[in-house]
Amino acid sequence: MIPSQPNILVYAPEGAEIYADWIRKSGYSSVHSASTADEARALLDGTEILLCWKFPMDEVELPSSLKWIQSMGAGVNDWVSGERFSTDITLTRIVDQFGGPIAEYVFAYLLYLTKDIPRLTAAQKRRSWDPFLTDFLSKKTIGVAGLGSIGKEVVRKARAFDMQVKGLSVTGSSADLVDHHFTPAEWNSFVQDLDYLILTLPLTSQTEGVLNRDLLLTMKSTACVVNVGRGQLIVEQDLVDVMRKGHLRAAVLDVFENEPLLDSHPFWDMPNVYITPHLSGPSIPQEVCQFFIENLQRYSNGLPLMGVVDRTLGY
Amino acid sequence: MIPSQPNILVYAPEGAEIYADWIRKSGYSSVHSASTADEARALLDGTEILLCWKFPMDEVELPSSLKWIQSMGAGVNDWVSGERFSTDITLTRIVDQFGGPIAEYVFAYLLYLTKDIPRLTAAQKRRSWDPFLTDFLSKKTIGVAGLGSIGKEVVRKARAFDMQVKGLSVTGSSADLVDHHFTPAEWNSFVQDLDYLILTLPLTSQTEGVLNRDLLLTMKSTACVVNVGRGQLIVEQDLVDVMRKGHLRAAVLDVFENEPLLDSHPFWDMPNVYITPHLSGPSIPQEVCQFFIENLQRYSNGLPLMGVVDRTLGY
Repeated sequence: MIPSQPNILVYAPEGAEIYADWIRKSGYSSVHSASTADEARALLDGTEILLCWKFPMDEVELPSSLKWIQSMGAGVNDWVSGERFSTDITLTRIVDQFGGPIAEYVFAYLLYLTKDIPRLTAAQKRRSWDPFLTDFLSKKTIGVAGLGSIGKEVVRKARAFDMQVKGLSVTGSSADLVDHHFTPAEWNSFVQDLDYLILTLPLTSQTEGVLNRDLLLTMKSTACVVNVGRGQLIVEQDLVDVMRKGHLRAAVLDVFENEPLLDSHPFWDMPNVYITPHLSGPSIPQEVCQFFIENLQRYSNGLPLMGVVDRTLGY
Repeated sequence: MIPSQPNILVYAPEGAEIYADWIRKSGYSSVHSASTADEARALLDGTEILLCWKFPMDEVELPSSLKWIQSMGAGVNDWVSGERFSTDITLTRIVDQFGGPIAEYVFAYLLYLTKDIPRLTAAQKRRSWDPFLTDFLSKKTIGVAGLGSIGKEVVRKARAFDMQVKGLSVTGSSADLVDHHFTPAEWNSFVQDLDYLILTLPLTSQTEGVLNRDLLLTMKSTACVVNVGRGQLIVEQDLVDVMRKGHLRAAVLDVFENEPLLDSHPFWDMPNVYITPHLSGPSIPQEVCQFFIENLQRYSNGLPLMGVVDRTLGY
């Protein structure tokens, strides 16, 4: 029994009706879906709850009936910047769902680089039997910036690889998970002896452009950077400049200042830059729906929602 | 103080003197090194302890003074087969040293395949932004054949990736580490629903050729095989045959029936076969020396040695 039947709109450029169907199957009857700004405008009047991905917020005005927006992603910087909507509206994001997949992505590339799979692949093409001593993750130092559900899962896997683990976070609430914890005032000390820096931070006014030329040059020249947070955490031009001078061993980038990455971007051709198309933490419809439906039940029963965004912190 | 000064010979085709030097620095004075059969013959008379790698056992007769042979590797099938030396001589192998490196190798390739890094690399070359839903290790089933120090480390890392873990071993002494344990009489049940089969077994008369056509065809057609044990565990021609018919998603092979892999071997060109030159578990001189010196101290003090080979079991 659903205590009330709120009006729900699902917005997504693709697949919105799939989500709507799943929600209806859970007993909610007033569920509509839209995939364009025009469709959204036509359906928003009276909507109480919006489940959305890439919502055209510049084109569509939100109705006064709206009480809750659930994003299908983990990052909500688009919503939070510029006070786009009344503080009476609750904003939630998906949490605890991207940690596993993103940590798998991170360790896929850490091991790919450490074991030098490119060299092994090239040797096989030449039919060349060429043994060499590969490097190890064990005993290397990994720094995880951001210790939310994603950062924590990276830390957990780093433990299984017997790495030294450093962490940086705003709240320090997970400081006991790492060997050495740093605050945002200590970025320089945090990065200076890392072998691997993993960015899992949200984009906020405090984190935007934090990895700039000065901080990059503070890092060891043999270090690797992996960005699975947001592109704007890194000043891309600074990264291009320092890497062109031979600084850093590799950069693995899943997120960019502009996505899709511009065809003319220098990253594409740089031999130590590994580009992936923002796929490390996929929003899987079934799992997003599970999260949303559990949140809907909490909403209907007047319980606190999961993943509520603190607009002051920005995540 | 070393209670006695046994005559020690280090044999290795390359770098024997490096090992000898380390051993001398630990207080042992009677240490010689050889890198050819002729050198070994000239120095073996009166030798009590032999530390060796790729010893030319078909060309060199062992002296009656010999009491202990320490192999620099984990696999000793060459020594054990054919009753090559008196049972009065103790044979030891390196244990507990290859688990970490080999498990890193295994997960490097599991993640490389699962995250489809080849597809991502090819897309970058074409400057193509082409997001797709990658697969996950999480919830997949891994089967680890052999639960010695190497297999146990693979199991430990598999836990960090939230995999289902099955294991097969002779003794069952580590059965509690896996979700489901199988004996060597249960190979068919063991392999039938695995997503990944990892071979970490020693080569014995029981394990030689165990992965033959019948057992391969018992596996799921989407399964991956990783061999970090010994090449002869797999009937290579059977693997070629079933994979040419589209069975198995991939085979990652670090060991082969004949090494170096023959230039004419079909594996080189097969698109889903990943060949590496027996480098997953490197014998690192410093770590081998540490192990040997600890064993030497035990030997000098009449304590049981580490890594003693049971010649009946063959490892």
